[in-house]
This record gives sequence, structure tokens and C-alpha cells, in this order.
Amino acid sequence: MTHDATILTHLRRVADTGVSGAALASILGVSRAAVWARIEELRRLGYEIEASPHRGYVLRAVPDVLHADDLLARLGKIRIIGRDLRVFHETTSTNDVIERLAIDGVAEGILVFAETQTAGRGRLGRHWISPPGLGLWFSVLLRPKLSPMATTQLTVASAVAVARAIESQTQLKPQIKWPNDIILNGRKVCGILTELSAEMDRIRYVTLGIGLDVNQTRDDLPPELLAIATSLRIESGRTHPRANLALALIHELDEVYHRVNSGGFARISDDWASRCNTLGERIRVRSGDRTIRGTAEALDDEGALLLRTEHGRLERILGGDVTIEK
Amino acid sequence: MTHDATILTHLRRVADTGVSGAALASILGVSRAAVWARIEELRRLGYEIEASPHRGYVLRAVPDVLHADDLLARLGKIRIIGRDLRVFHETTSTNDVIERLAIDGVAEGILVFAETQTAGRGRLGRHWISPPGLGLWFSVLLRPKLSPMATTQLTVASAVAVARAIESQTQLKPQIKWPNDIILNGRKVCGILTELSAEMDRIRYVTLGIGLDVNQTRDDLPPELLAIATSLRIESGRTHPRANLALALIHELDEVYHRVNSGGFARISDDWASRCNTLGERIRVRSGDRTIRGTAEALDDEGALLLRTEHGRLERILGGDVTIEK
Repeated sequence: MTHDATILTHLRRVADTGVSGAALASILGVSRAAVWARIEELRRLGYEIEASPHRGYVLRAVPDVLHADDLLARLGKIRIIGRDLRVFHETTSTNDVIERLAIDGVAEGILVFAETQTAGRGRLGRHWISPPGLGLWFSVLLRPKLSPMATTQLTVASAVAVARAIESQTQLKPQIKWPNDIILNGRKVCGILTELSAEMDRIRYVTLGIGLDVNQTRDDLPPELLAIATSLRIESGRTHPRANLALALIHELDEVYHRVNSGGFARISDDWASRCNTLGERIRVRSGDRTIRGTAEALDDEGALLLRTEHGRLERILGGDVTIEK
Repeated sequence: MTHDATILTHLRRVADTGVSGAALASILGVSRAAVWARIEELRRLGYEIEASPHRGYVLRAVPDVLHADDLLARLGKIRIIGRDLRVFHETTSTNDVIERLAIDGVAEGILVFAETQTAGRGRLGRHWISPPGLGLWFSVLLRPKLSPMATTQLTVASAVAVARAIESQTQLKPQIKWPNDIILNGRKVCGILTELSAEMDRIRYVTLGIGLDVNQTRDDLPPELLAIATSLRIESGRTHPRANLALALIHELDEVYHRVNSGGFARISDDWASRCNTLGERIRVRSGDRTIRGTAEALDDEGALLLRTEHGRLERILGGDVTIEK
């Protein structure tokens, strides 16, 4: 743990009681002047730290920033996802960063957050808008022992994890639109982009990119997206501390990843089905130049959507743009 | 074209007649001293260039080196593969280099050669031995408009292209072992590694890595590989200029890539079948933890191998290790 993380951990632990500079200096094995310098740096990041001669340092308020060391210190026990974690002020796309780390041989589980992305990616090469400080834009490196065909399981499982985290942190009830859009009141609040690097029969790595709109007001959204996009703040009427959401997301993702790896996709798939707004509906799917119409019947054990066409044939859909027909 | 490439092009064109330094200086728009400096640099690379007061410069012999500008100047007309070309003295793996170029948004068709690789990759994470100067180790960046499922078509088509290039340059008759080993007299002379980066239903890019053993003697091969590996030199009894082979490979790859992209996989697949030593044989395929036995019956229109098991069931094989059972 870095000095910053250790200081924040102790400040949180003692709450209003406060901790003296001398005590922190002794814990860290540094001088009181060095402690003071770190406190100043944390204040510069927006942490409100009060200093009084009697109680020492007291943490009064934390800013809505993502601080890698602080997140790691608060994360608690996880298996794989979140073992390492980096926060960038600005990147092209966090998926790009993960891809470079993957090529360099970095172990799975590392997360990269960016406060803003200059070239955030959505599915099918679309642009993803990532305004600074208002959402969670991050990617995870995975190296699962699955066949490339089973990668859809990870997309489905991630959607379940995100829905669970949003529900526990906001009490909102997100739905899932196949395969990976998280929906609140009919509008998209989160997108998941699963990018795969593989040989024919072996996954090299998977980059799981997640973009969650958190604290945007309606004024923060581009007008042309108002009909189809939303944020947690718009839906709940209040702002949400992004660090808490980030921690909940990491725990839920780590949990479903463990389940998928240990052959437990069936249970995740049940949870997915209960949250899904696509199953049972008449839909059309556009995939490349092709459009298929039918009823979304079920998910198969690799996460593919089974679509019953008008002619009664069952089609297996691996990807594409789904529209629910009224 | 660079000055080096222009000089080599002219030296080749005039052959024994020779070309004066003054003529080259005028063609390049530089001083005769500058021409002389480039000639000296080419000599340093191993090009034997004679200078006489009467005939000027004459190209007597070319070294067995890969010179990017010279290859580009000699390449002639191609559609996509070979539009850009780089030669590295040493890399980790040429697939790594292509992957980085792909992330940077470089257009498809670029080739990267390395005289040697420190971490050459074979299929399934295996090491590929790439001694300096004795083979062709290169990778190509492709961005095909195929579904991820159809990537096997590229592997099959590349095997056909490599077999055709070897045949035209050496008169040897290579066979293909599914999906992508090139075989001479029962021993492997070339491996092809197809690495895919994709969303669920859309290819981002494909890295096609090719390793061809050219001028190794039996003494150059590791003893443990003598029973299963060979080189063009071992099989033909003579050395082969690698630049000529490289040019033939680029042309054949460009040709099959054009065919696959324009829906012409069926004809490539026919050529593949006629060169294949796997079809009709009793084989076993190990894929992950699973081993399947049966008769290799055909290739389907996505390049997958159709295997008839002992129980009469037809299995569709996308990858794995194939062993022909005697």
C-alpha cells in the first residue's frame, strides 16, 4: 500500500476521533514533515482533511475522484479482477490501454479507469462519449480458459454484474437488453464492449470495456441522445459517489468471472433471464448486412440468443443490433 | 521510392551494361558524391557493386538480406498485402509488432519481417525458433470484412498461398496438414499462426504470422526437431534467395486474400483439398482437454474440418492438434 492509501485507510478507520501526525509518521516510518506533505497532496486532490492541535488529522469529506491507491486500499478481498488497478486522467480508450498491457504479458485482472476518454469505443466501431468526472469508463484484462466461442458468456455475465452493482448502490432496477446494454426506464445507462484476441481454438485475452453514465444531468447529454440515453443521476434524482460504485462493480465482476470460470454460467444465465427485457419479445436483429425478425426465445449455454423466426426456425445469434418491435 | 531502391532498380535494369554515377546523380537529383555514399552503404549491406571508369556501376551480386525499400521496388502490382513493408533486424515476435500497429490504426496490408525473433510464437502458445538469416519470419495485418467465425478461411487460404509460392520458387511439392502446417516429405517446413482481434460479431483485425524454414541445414535444426521439421534447403539440396521467396509469398497471399474477400473461398478450398494430406485419413484431434478420433471428411465453407467419428457423427473442428493415425 502506498503512503497515501495508508493515510486514508487510517483516517477512515478513526473517523471523527482523528489521528495525530506523530502516529501516522510512526506507522509509515517517515518524518512528520513527510506526513504533512502527503496530507497537502491529498488536499490538493480534493480530500478535505482537517488538522487540529488536539485531535490531529480528521477526514471530513472525500472528493468524487478515482484514486487508484485509495480504491485498492478500500477494495477488500477479491479473487482476480482488481488485483491491480490504474487510473488515467485521460486516455484514447481504456480498451487500448488494456490491449497494450496484454501484449506486454500483464496478468489478468488488472483494471484501467480513465477520468475521460478522447476516443472511447462502443460496439461496432461506434464512438462512446466519456465526459470527465461524470461516469465510470474502465476496462479489465481477462485471460479465461474458455473456447473463443464461449466469450459471449463473459459479455452476458458482465451485464449481470453491472446490473447487480447498480441495484445495490442505487436501489434502481436495471434491465438488460441482449447482449450487453443496461437499461433504466427504457434508456441505456451502460454499455459493455467485449473485445477478444484469439487463435482459432484458444483465447489469448479478452478486454472487457465498461462505460457507465453516473452523474450526468439531462443538460450534460448530447440532445440527440436524450431519447435513448440516461444516467444514474437522471433516474434516481441524486448524485452517486463514483468510487463506491466502482468498488461495487469490481466485486460483482470478480464474482461472476469466478462463476463463469468454474462452470457456473447456468446460474448467471438464470439471473440474466430474469433481468432481461428482450426475452419473449418480438425483435429484429441487424448483423452486418442481414436483418432477422422473430421472437427472442432463450439464451443458450454459450450465451448466444436463440431467436424463433416467423417460419418457425430457431436461429442462433452471436451479436448484432437488437431492436424490440412494438 | 527511396534513393537506395531507385539505385538498385536502375542497376538491375541495366545489368552488365552499367550505369554512370553522373546518370544516377541526375536521376536522383543529388550530387555524384551523394550517389557514391549510397553505393558505399549498399556495399556495406552486402550488395556487390563494381565501379569502372568506362561502364560506371554494375551490380554483380545481391546478398541474402531483406531490404525493405528494395523489396517494395521489386514487388510490382499488388492489391492490399505488401502496400507497406518493414524489416526489423530483431523483434520479440513479428505478430507483436503488427498488433501494436493495428492498435495505432495502421491500414491493412502492412508486412513486418524480422531477421530474427527473440520470442517467436507458434500455435497454442508454443515457441517458434527463428535463427537469423535462415528463414522468413513475417506477419501481415488484415482487416477483412468477414464474420469472426469465417477467420479459418484466412488460415486455409494462407496455407494455399504459401504452398503455391514454395512450389513456384523451388519446384518442391508441399502438402498441407489441416489447418495450416506446410509439409515436405512428412516434415513441417512452415507454420502459420492466425491471431484474431474481434467483437462478438465483427473482426477488428487479423494478424497472420508466417514462419518458413528456408536455408537451414540439418545441423542448424535442434536435434529434437529433426524428425518433424525440415527446410527448403534440406529438401531441395540447394539454398534459396529469401528475397525472391518473400516476393512470391507476398503476391500469392495478396491474390488469395482478394479471392476470400470477394467470396471466392470455394475455389481456394478446392486447391487446398488437392494439396491436403489430412483428408480421407484417420486422424485424432486434441483440442484443449478433449481428443476426438475419426476420418477427416471435408472442409466446410468456413474452413472448418468435418470429422466423421467412429459413431458416424459429423463433428465440426475449428482448431486443435491433428495427428494422422497409421
